[in-house]
Amino acid sequence: MKIALAQLNYTIADIQGNASKIIRAIHEAKEKDADLVVFSELAICGYPPDDLLDYPHFVDECLSALQNIAVETHNITAIVGCPSINVQTHGRNLRNSAFILTNGQIQKKINKTLLPTYDVFNEARYFEANSLFESITINGQNFAVTICEDLWFNNGDFKYAINPIEQINAPKNSWIINLSASPYYHGKYQKRLDVLQKVCQDSDMGLIYVNQVGAHTDLIFDGRSMVLSNKGEMLLELAAYSETLEIFDTEIKHNSTKIKTNENIASIYESLVFGVKDYFSKMGFKQAILGSSGGIDSAVVQALASAALGGENVKAILMPSDFSSEGSVLDAETLSKNLNNSYEIVPISEIFNSYEKSLEPMFKDLPFNTAEENIQARSRAVLLMAISNKFGHILLNTSNKSEMSVGYTTLYGDMCGSLSVIGDLYKTTVYELARFINKDKEIIPINIIDKAPSAELRPNQKDSDSLPEYYILDSILKLYIEERQSADEIIKSGYEEAVVKRVLRMVNNNEYKRFQAPPILKISSKAYGRGRIIPLVSKW
Amino acid sequence: MKIALAQLNYTIADIQGNASKIIRAIHEAKEKDADLVVFSELAICGYPPDDLLDYPHFVDECLSALQNIAVETHNITAIVGCPSINVQTHGRNLRNSAFILTNGQIQKKINKTLLPTYDVFNEARYFEANSLFESITINGQNFAVTICEDLWFNNGDFKYAINPIEQINAPKNSWIINLSASPYYHGKYQKRLDVLQKVCQDSDMGLIYVNQVGAHTDLIFDGRSMVLSNKGEMLLELAAYSETLEIFDTEIKHNSTKIKTNENIASIYESLVFGVKDYFSKMGFKQAILGSSGGIDSAVVQALASAALGGENVKAILMPSDFSSEGSVLDAETLSKNLNNSYEIVPISEIFNSYEKSLEPMFKDLPFNTAEENIQARSRAVLLMAISNKFGHILLNTSNKSEMSVGYTTLYGDMCGSLSVIGDLYKTTVYELARFINKDKEIIPINIIDKAPSAELRPNQKDSDSLPEYYILDSILKLYIEERQSADEIIKSGYEEAVVKRVLRMVNNNEYKRFQAPPILKISSKAYGRGRIIPLVSKW
Repeated sequence: MKIALAQLNYTIADIQGNASKIIRAIHEAKEKDADLVVFSELAICGYPPDDLLDYPHFVDECLSALQNIAVETHNITAIVGCPSINVQTHGRNLRNSAFILTNGQIQKKINKTLLPTYDVFNEARYFEANSLFESITINGQNFAVTICEDLWFNNGDFKYAINPIEQINAPKNSWIINLSASPYYHGKYQKRLDVLQKVCQDSDMGLIYVNQVGAHTDLIFDGRSMVLSNKGEMLLELAAYSETLEIFDTEIKHNSTKIKTNENIASIYESLVFGVKDYFSKMGFKQAILGSSGGIDSAVVQALASAALGGENVKAILMPSDFSSEGSVLDAETLSKNLNNSYEIVPISEIFNSYEKSLEPMFKDLPFNTAEENIQARSRAVLLMAISNKFGHILLNTSNKSEMSVGYTTLYGDMCGSLSVIGDLYKTTVYELARFINKDKEIIPINIIDKAPSAELRPNQKDSDSLPEYYILDSILKLYIEERQSADEIIKSGYEEAVVKRVLRMVNNNEYKRFQAPPILKISSKAYGRGRIIPLVSKW
Repeated sequence: MKIALAQLNYTIADIQGNASKIIRAIHEAKEKDADLVVFSELAICGYPPDDLLDYPHFVDECLSALQNIAVETHNITAIVGCPSINVQTHGRNLRNSAFILTNGQIQKKINKTLLPTYDVFNEARYFEANSLFESITINGQNFAVTICEDLWFNNGDFKYAINPIEQINAPKNSWIINLSASPYYHGKYQKRLDVLQKVCQDSDMGLIYVNQVGAHTDLIFDGRSMVLSNKGEMLLELAAYSETLEIFDTEIKHNSTKIKTNENIASIYESLVFGVKDYFSKMGFKQAILGSSGGIDSAVVQALASAALGGENVKAILMPSDFSSEGSVLDAETLSKNLNNSYEIVPISEIFNSYEKSLEPMFKDLPFNTAEENIQARSRAVLLMAISNKFGHILLNTSNKSEMSVGYTTLYGDMCGSLSVIGDLYKTTVYELARFINKDKEIIPINIIDKAPSAELRPNQKDSDSLPEYYILDSILKLYIEERQSADEIIKSGYEEAVVKRVLRMVNNNEYKRFQAPPILKISSKAYGRGRIIPLVSKW
């Protein structure tokens, strides 16, 4: 039996566009003699559709598009992910379903059992869980059809009560089919493989696993659909970050291929470039703009954006103040030249002076402090947004996770932007990424990497004046944010008590800034944004 | 039997502070000869604690505070809401529990069954649902102890599978106890009453209902704890928006009091004033600042803030540009004087000119457009934030729901602020509120109410140049946002097709601005913010 794995890039809520894409893939699968073609979870609307599911006409449109897709299923069966109505008299209104389409009709619907509701997942908000279990037969072959989390029994953040694969209890020699929408983070591929291989081994069944590919604002779906044997061997793997349809023939003996998880800095680079590229592509944007300070954060974002959009589509704005070192401007110019970016120099001194003059009656001779530092950062934001508004460039945010964590960043200043590119990378990872970008030649001037980090908002300022060294800061932050350890636990790992308490206090006190931050490309198991909801008014 | 209803104002995560408050209330109840004192849902940590629940040491601290509270329960029983560990081998890690404390010890724990996971509620993210049902006996009296949503069977956004009250099946003459955390919105009090009265009538039991009071950033809890008879008559009602402990004696015959729901503009005013006041009080802030444009939105916020914090604690900044009408400045000055607010006039023309001059090499002779409009709005934000940073005032946001909906607002400009006071009020409601504020005397100069709304960002600009009249706009928005109707349904109600489609497109296209908006005091059934999660990158 020939099974096509259709790994496609859907646009959320572009129901007609997604349906056309699915129909084209059905025809391609037919041309390749496939008996069955499998699509990913909620393919028709893209994953995650969030509260659009609360609009009844949204779900109606999905179901009506499904009918149009069904019409195309002659001489082939298609399994398509689509939200559907819960017809029971109780429970949530919807189901997260896999529809079996064949002979031009909807033949069957199978509902998702395990509904992830943690981190970035909110499925219990919309869907009622499945409680009917059975395997299905297509062209004489048995399948256990499951949806994403259904295979993550006992592997997620908490323990589910039932294991769908055990409940389905499929006959020997069945294959598991899984329609997935599994977002990327660093380390996820290995985790995903471990989980899926164990499912195959425990159940003694092979697995057809179809993930979506594509970035949906903050969430990056890497694809990497695959076929595993009943021993967990890799029989077929689809490329990461690309739309592709491949055929797997269950009747042919396949050699297993060696699995290369390769989760290193290169894979972070790849995912971020893809995240930026797909954001622009789906929004119909072409050109990016960013503030280029001569520091490492903006340099890395500039390089990533150039890789994603082409150097000619990235515009750097250099906005020196009286506190900017001469080197910073020169380094930023060199960077733009290396990346083939256009750039403009717009000094902010006169703007800063006009604020000072306007505020003089109120500020009188009060000493220079955060107020004046922030005026500089915010003047730059006003300039960037003005240029963005005038020419239609999209502003990229350049904050990193370390400074976002401790609030070493100016709200409405350097926190502006449509998309935060490196907001889930600690500063130490930003350095690693800079060195990776320079691996073949010096794209980011080495001076930018070597000099001590500084916001350059007052004379001779250094980050280390008010923050611990980044290798210490980042380790503490990781234990607190990703590992959810308490201050006591972190101190027990060997960090200085005063430092730990100060860092955690800074993290907790700056929740209000992060609340108004742009969406952040997620590359860690716990990113700021939708996956981490913390009260603003609290004593924590 | 004497039952004390303890309606307290908790601070999220202030576990020690909340525990002390609970202990004081236990002593007060004892002094008043109560046999039982009932607290609200998750009283120990305040509701909602959000992802702080993901930190194991957070829950440990709650449970350890509970032990300290238990010690105080001699000659009295206390029922206290607290998160607890799910001891089953499967399911989510936690329970949302009501602990029965007596004789200095934890005697029993009862878990919540119905876990709201819609709009602003996320409980399935953290808690495992209860599946054990039994009534309890305290001093010979039977009680069915429930937690908040447990009484909302078949009354929320979707239908639950089981009705906890039926499952508990308490003996005749039992009382229902409900530990609640039920946030306010306009119309909620009537809905809440309807639900609770029906529960009493259906079960033939009286109800002791204890709600928390207090604002938690965006969510305002109005209190209004109550005792209903088995016929649904109101036997006792606690005051809205205040901390209070009152005794209900089950052995005394009570006359039912007439219920006045009074859900009018006065109740919106009251809740917003309380929301601002409690935000400042819990954050330890004293003084507010806002941009006072001479328009109705900022005027209403200024009046609300003055009512909440005292006129002397509100600072108005008037920032006229060349496009500001003379009347606007005069009106704003009069307003500040009427409210006893200090005010400063900081013109922005020179700042605007310095931006124009700096951008001249790039903008050349391109026509004046949104870019220049936004520079003005953002220059004002920079000034407000500078003053806020210098003097420690907290910036209040003055955007209304109509302009937030259609994006008629500048991100990083007038969208700045720590808290959005009227972001859940459509423009027509803002007018209603202005007239209410002026009911006894002219606080808001009548000119501000009477003149045509304008952003004053270009010569002779009027909102109606680019938007439908507000009474039409607001009606369409309500059908789309609150009622979740489709364009077709709204058009069928009699609105012009082109207008409806344009408005809905504006709403959908401006999701990115709202993503970075401040938290908004919720006063409607569907506010922007945590209760409405919409994808940013989408084709909807």
